[in-house]
Amino acid sequence: MSKKNDKRQRLVDAADDLIYQQTFSSTTLADIALKADVPLGNYFKTKDDILKAVVQKREADLNALFSTWEQIPNIKDRLRSFITQFLQGSDTVARFGCAMGSMCQELGKLSGDISFLAAGLMKKTVNWVETQFKSLGKADKSGTLAEYLVAALQGGALMTLTFKDPAILKSQSKNLETWLESV
Amino acid sequence: MSKKNDKRQRLVDAADDLIYQQTFSSTTLADIALKADVPLGNYFKTKDDILKAVVQKREADLNALFSTWEQIPNIKDRLRSFITQFLQGSDTVARFGCAMGSMCQELGKLSGDISFLAAGLMKKTVNWVETQFKSLGKADKSGTLAEYLVAALQGGALMTLTFKDPAILKSQSKNLETWLESV
Repeated sequence: MSKKNDKRQRLVDAADDLIYQQTFSSTTLADIALKADVPLGNYFKTKDDILKAVVQKREADLNALFSTWEQIPNIKDRLRSFITQFLQGSDTVARFGCAMGSMCQELGKLSGDISFLAAGLMKKTVNWVETQFKSLGKADKSGTLAEYLVAALQGGALMTLTFKDPAILKSQSKNLETWLESV
Repeated sequence: MSKKNDKRQRLVDAADDLIYQQTFSSTTLADIALKADVPLGNYFKTKDDILKAVVQKREADLNALFSTWEQIPNIKDRLRSFITQFLQGSDTVARFGCAMGSMCQELGKLSGDISFLAAGLMKKTVNWVETQFKSLGKADKSGTLAEYLVAALQGGALMTLTFKDPAILKSQSKNLETWLESV
């Protein structure tokens, strides 16, 4: 990676962390520059610009995760990996919530294009889960099953954050793994 | 209601709407005073003070709802009312999310006492649902059932907001009513 790209990446990583930990609206360009130790001006002119770069980074991360899971031959094992992915970060979820879910919650209240920016991440997630259910031969209700699974994990993540209790996400994940068996 | 109380109430109502529509962090004391057309200084000194009053108001609203539903003799009908309460506001949920859920999401990321302020509303909700499941003779798993129902609605509300699509909440509510039949 060139030095220039490295500096840009440091800014995006810093913005990603700060937006997750303290919300987009509470994060200033100055916060991001300070955390990254890189002056912002040369790379991003506005907060919206850097938010777009953060969403692109998260989309690339999601693509990488999905590609990894697609190497797993057993389809239900893929979906179990999806569920336990949340579980692995349960302490962080108890502190800051789900990175994707909280961004959708915050940006969703805004007006204009920015309001839809994080929706693409959620859509990609629901679509990937739906594809797995289709591969399981659930074509007629794959959309409903995918929506159900993602909503249950998002609701579980919100309650984990609200009560600062990682045990909630663990219990929710366990219930969803049992549910998955029965599908 | 005295004129003084009326002015205080106007401030709380304005703050409640603004916090719901544009988040707590984006709402200024000046916004609230302007919307209520009442000078803030005499009633609330800080944003945290008015946030506490908003949470108290929402708690009173919840108590009133729960008391109304407790007049319904059939316990499953009470829970159906709880589920369809969300459905009635599905257009608003598609625009701003769930008022309680989005407040829990936002405040949960903060540090200190304020981080737990909205958790009491969620706790009250889960407890009320749990009490209904206990009345249905589900004492051994009433906690899990309550957590499941509230999480599913919260996740459904988040996806409704994310995709700006009231149909998601309608489909999620319908699924939950079917689930409730089977409990």
